[in-house]
Amino acid sequence: MSAYRVAPGANVDLATAQTLPAIADYSRTALLAMLAERVQRFAELQQMLYAESRQALLLIFQGMDAAGKDSTIKHVTTGVNPQGFRVTNFRAPTYQDIEHSYLRRHWLALPERGHIGIFNRSHYEEVVTVRVHPKLLDNRKLPSRSVDEAFWNERMEDIVAFERHLVRNGTAVAKFFLNISKKEQKARLLERVSNRKKHWKFDLADLQARRRWKQYRSAYEAALQATSTAEAPWYIVPADGKPAMRVIVASIIVETLSRMNPSYPEPDASLKAEIEAMQKSFGG
Amino acid sequence: MSAYRVAPGANVDLATAQTLPAIADYSRTALLAMLAERVQRFAELQQMLYAESRQALLLIFQGMDAAGKDSTIKHVTTGVNPQGFRVTNFRAPTYQDIEHSYLRRHWLALPERGHIGIFNRSHYEEVVTVRVHPKLLDNRKLPSRSVDEAFWNERMEDIVAFERHLVRNGTAVAKFFLNISKKEQKARLLERVSNRKKHWKFDLADLQARRRWKQYRSAYEAALQATSTAEAPWYIVPADGKPAMRVIVASIIVETLSRMNPSYPEPDASLKAEIEAMQKSFGG
Repeated sequence: MSAYRVAPGANVDLATAQTLPAIADYSRTALLAMLAERVQRFAELQQMLYAESRQALLLIFQGMDAAGKDSTIKHVTTGVNPQGFRVTNFRAPTYQDIEHSYLRRHWLALPERGHIGIFNRSHYEEVVTVRVHPKLLDNRKLPSRSVDEAFWNERMEDIVAFERHLVRNGTAVAKFFLNISKKEQKARLLERVSNRKKHWKFDLADLQARRRWKQYRSAYEAALQATSTAEAPWYIVPADGKPAMRVIVASIIVETLSRMNPSYPEPDASLKAEIEAMQKSFGG
Repeated sequence: MSAYRVAPGANVDLATAQTLPAIADYSRTALLAMLAERVQRFAELQQMLYAESRQALLLIFQGMDAAGKDSTIKHVTTGVNPQGFRVTNFRAPTYQDIEHSYLRRHWLALPERGHIGIFNRSHYEEVVTVRVHPKLLDNRKLPSRSVDEAFWNERMEDIVAFERHLVRNGTAVAKFFLNISKKEQKARLLERVSNRKKHWKFDLADLQARRRWKQYRSAYEAALQATSTAEAPWYIVPADGKPAMRVIVASIIVETLSRMNPSYPEPDASLKAEIEAMQKSFGG
């Protein structure tokens, strides 16, 4: 899965990045079987992470509208024990959020040891959406300064330092950019309009964002390039084929968890003795 | 007050640093008058900070036991409006705290815009007390790694990044190391033992820490040296004379607030019109 990983310092060009992976050609049945296998492995590893209770995992999902963030999160986490797992959906900051630095609400949503946290949108909105719409800064009550490239670079520097701190203290971080083509996005937005059950997902703001496609793309390019580190890598996942995308995302999660190598804790001497005594008394 | 400021990168030698300032010679009456004047200016500036509601101020107090952290905080904040002001006393991390990175509980206690927050002890305990007693790390559930100089340097790097982020987002930071001599500490600890009203402040751990004076001192030296930055400076305040120390601390707070230059917000056009209309209707 390292094919999708953004190497630290590598140039990111989303215009030429794949939006459809090789495995998109596989049959739907084959892809579903691949996903099921990974989802099961994910659940097993989560169980060990929870039992070990030393490390945590933070998964971040970003992408253009309709790239499939919600449905991918839903499908890859089937089978994951909700005790020890939480998805946080970050919308526009509230009146209370803006009384603090933008990182604070993300700090509050971090997974504790043994847990897995998913950010559906994240602090990266602060260097993507806010960068495309700098007017959003007007009500953020920040110290007045010019909003130039240095300003965004400082934000990205702070984000890198934030994630580095998490990794150093036991929270692994993996970040997914779901890379949809403009054409596929159009098809999905049309589907939202035409399917009554999907009307609730339709938002006029998506069409406005679509008109700024190139601006979003270059903000994402800058962000991915500046913040993909060895400790907290970005993965650019081709998103035009949903079943294939889910397999890739699930594979990366399983790889990440495997590298974390969680293990069931060894019972200490006194607990071992108690277990043995109980086994004897039960005739085990 | 810049005499007490640790310049970024400057060598810190606490063994030779002043524990008694020149003004300690002033009469008690003169020092109390100086303090009263600064305390009043502090209250005025706080009021403006609160009304402006864009910037925040974080004051951090560290020092050996009996250096006077509690009483200094009490005396310099007389007159400060408690609405918009909070002291957080950081003791040993709780069972819940250690489920997260050590910085999280400090994030939770940060002042919001317009407010002033005081940390009585702080995240610096993580690179001082914990450094002197690395055994404390055993129950912190951290990823296993060697606890060498690089480990402490990483922690200090994270702290610098944390505070830099705060300053960039509108929270000014000033840090006070109350520098008491070993001799004066002895006198104060004896006083705690002999005065029944001070018994509650006496803690056997203080005597143990006293035995490790040099280790604490060099941990503080390393921390102050690595984390005194232009944005978030350390001040080493001579602490053997309490009235003088309070004047110095209050002066530094007033200086810091003055540099932040808070101002009452200008009413916008519609509010101005309403105010004028009301003045008219009241015959003002």
